[in-house]
Amino acid sequence: MDVKVYMQQVGRQARAASREMAKSDTNAKNTALTAMAHAIQRDAAKLLEANAIDMAAAKTAGLDSAMLDRLSLTEKGIVSMAEGLLQIAALPDPVGEITDLNFRPSGIQVGRMRVPLGVVGIIYEARPNVTADAAGLCLKSGNAAILRGGSEAMHSNQAIAACVREGLKAAGLPENSVQVIETTDRAAVGELITMREFVDVIVPRGGKGLIERLINEARIPVIKHLHGVCHVYIDDKADQEKAIKIADNAKTSRYGTCNTMETLLVAEGVAQSVLPPLCKIYQDKGVELRGCEASRAIVPQMLAATEEDWTTEYLAPILSIRVVKDMDAAIDHINTYSSQHTESIVTEDYSRARRFLREVDSSSVMVNASTRFADGFEYGLGAEIGISTDKIHARGPVGLEGLTSQKYIVLGEGHVRG
Amino acid sequence: MDVKVYMQQVGRQARAASREMAKSDTNAKNTALTAMAHAIQRDAAKLLEANAIDMAAAKTAGLDSAMLDRLSLTEKGIVSMAEGLLQIAALPDPVGEITDLNFRPSGIQVGRMRVPLGVVGIIYEARPNVTADAAGLCLKSGNAAILRGGSEAMHSNQAIAACVREGLKAAGLPENSVQVIETTDRAAVGELITMREFVDVIVPRGGKGLIERLINEARIPVIKHLHGVCHVYIDDKADQEKAIKIADNAKTSRYGTCNTMETLLVAEGVAQSVLPPLCKIYQDKGVELRGCEASRAIVPQMLAATEEDWTTEYLAPILSIRVVKDMDAAIDHINTYSSQHTESIVTEDYSRARRFLREVDSSSVMVNASTRFADGFEYGLGAEIGISTDKIHARGPVGLEGLTSQKYIVLGEGHVRG
Repeated sequence: MDVKVYMQQVGRQARAASREMAKSDTNAKNTALTAMAHAIQRDAAKLLEANAIDMAAAKTAGLDSAMLDRLSLTEKGIVSMAEGLLQIAALPDPVGEITDLNFRPSGIQVGRMRVPLGVVGIIYEARPNVTADAAGLCLKSGNAAILRGGSEAMHSNQAIAACVREGLKAAGLPENSVQVIETTDRAAVGELITMREFVDVIVPRGGKGLIERLINEARIPVIKHLHGVCHVYIDDKADQEKAIKIADNAKTSRYGTCNTMETLLVAEGVAQSVLPPLCKIYQDKGVELRGCEASRAIVPQMLAATEEDWTTEYLAPILSIRVVKDMDAAIDHINTYSSQHTESIVTEDYSRARRFLREVDSSSVMVNASTRFADGFEYGLGAEIGISTDKIHARGPVGLEGLTSQKYIVLGEGHVRG
Repeated sequence: MDVKVYMQQVGRQARAASREMAKSDTNAKNTALTAMAHAIQRDAAKLLEANAIDMAAAKTAGLDSAMLDRLSLTEKGIVSMAEGLLQIAALPDPVGEITDLNFRPSGIQVGRMRVPLGVVGIIYEARPNVTADAAGLCLKSGNAAILRGGSEAMHSNQAIAACVREGLKAAGLPENSVQVIETTDRAAVGELITMREFVDVIVPRGGKGLIERLINEARIPVIKHLHGVCHVYIDDKADQEKAIKIADNAKTSRYGTCNTMETLLVAEGVAQSVLPPLCKIYQDKGVELRGCEASRAIVPQMLAATEEDWTTEYLAPILSIRVVKDMDAAIDHINTYSSQHTESIVTEDYSRARRFLREVDSSSVMVNASTRFADGFEYGLGAEIGISTDKIHARGPVGLEGLTSQKYIVLGEGHVRG
């Protein structure tokens, strides 16, 4: 197979399908989503079988346990994949929404209409559930999708794709509005990220290597998520009980997620009282602590943190801790080392809360809440296609709205410009 | 001078200034804009002198008359540059605006806060007024700006930049929040569009060559404007008087603007009655007409249009004309050949108007109005930094809002995720 020819064909089909999708009504899209969900539940056994083939190959290839974990489909996972599609069906249709329609002095009425982006290319790794989530989100937002999953999940993805196609067909929507790339050739990615005439945006869900490749090679806009080096800052005006609860939850409720705290900042005025009980909790849960000198003077069991720790996303039971003079020093640390994902301040001080919200330059900024809330479901967006740490187009969790754009509409009665 | 070292220095200064700008209050920004406007008016004679040097050099270099026209500063132009800054001062400050702050089932409150993009790089050609406009828009939206004007406008730009710096200083804002690049070395552009650590977005205002270079070489998101191949479609349900008025205005009110109609589409049912009086108007105004076979059968004086005409932005008194079967054929033509800038339908038919608005995939879609309205001032955005024909981030005229992003804010009282 000539990969370029194949990808051009996929692109051309996606572009044609995207024009149909942009026009399709809410009812058809919801019918498709519901039919996909039913097909996935009905075919649960087939999906598990396909996944077993992928899992066996992955084990033979010696993939690590985190990778195997992401690759594996369970009965529960299949149910929640189907439920995710039904939830997307229940969300309001963003397409066609008209806002801010106002008369101008010239007499014309000017407003904005929400429209699909067109063709969305999604590049992801092992997780087969992304196939259903991404298909569902792109469909509801009126886009055509080209999905490029990890080669290790090929059988699982194709089985899910069959259910997706069945749903599209049931609703009379073009089957090419969701295409799963059928080759494992890495050159397919190179084509996907440079076919400007056929693809409007690329959404990568993968590690740093993929993101770096996109920054260098993509010729199409990318909605990207670099990584999550999230911070909690415990202010000297914090309620200490809330502080300990939040700092515990932000680190230990899950270690492998991008909204997990990786560095804890503590105001020097309360370090002495907050750090000992908090570190006890971490140590009891087996979290390795790496502190600055001032923190280690208070909790000597900590390892010494190096400069590298401040920029590291551990995705593991490891936490770096730094004592800072005050909120300004905390904001400086964050704006220097953070990946601009999510940061939280714990304080009862009104003016500091207000300043922290304004001055911290991250996609989610919180007061008295755990960073773990940074998530499309928790924010009420429904499913998310990723969390953007960019500033352009979409910032933070990206749901249906992030997969759309707004065009201007102008209504007149024969108006001309003077 | 080592261009790379120089540009890195400019970038570092811009990044530092952007952090101050993000925090600066509305009053300081408006004070700066007002002081800039006054300095520009006071220094009118100096600006004219500087411009005279640029103009003399440009004439010696044999620049064409369109280029000289764009380069020239007049007293009237200086007044409107100053007025533009005062108008930007009068616009509401977008930064810090909080919207959609709602309670979630978990008890947290989630909303969005509008924030500056950070550092905006603007690359433009001869027009010196862009220096003031771009500085004003970036300032009001809380961004730092790096401006790279055409080398032929160097003296004019530096004179305007002195007024801008004076305004910033008067308001106590960092002078580096607007930097005009002082080298004419083209390598400076290469640095500007790849300094990912210092620049958040590039806004080009230039020709196709510049845009192509950015698509291939930029490593930073670009808000771009390809070109304007705008259409008016006269439906067979059009009010013919309105149709003629709009089609005349869309072409002949100005020939050199991107929102000028370049192709006229006419439903075959009314071509016979609309084309003769309309073409008479065009011919009286010296507009060269290039038609399809069906149009030439009605108005034989037209030249024959070629395939190339359908994608050409003439920016001149030339118009291509095509007779189409119906609205579907018109939409097909537009979605195939248009540059997705601005299209208008003239019709009294409710359902067709509604479908045209929905199905035409351009940054501005109009009913019964001249394409010439596609403009930031006409839309009520105040000044515009450009008109985006992209779908990502900003579409259509880009004003203050297009120079900002939205981050999520979360307010809790010690909330943790279950």
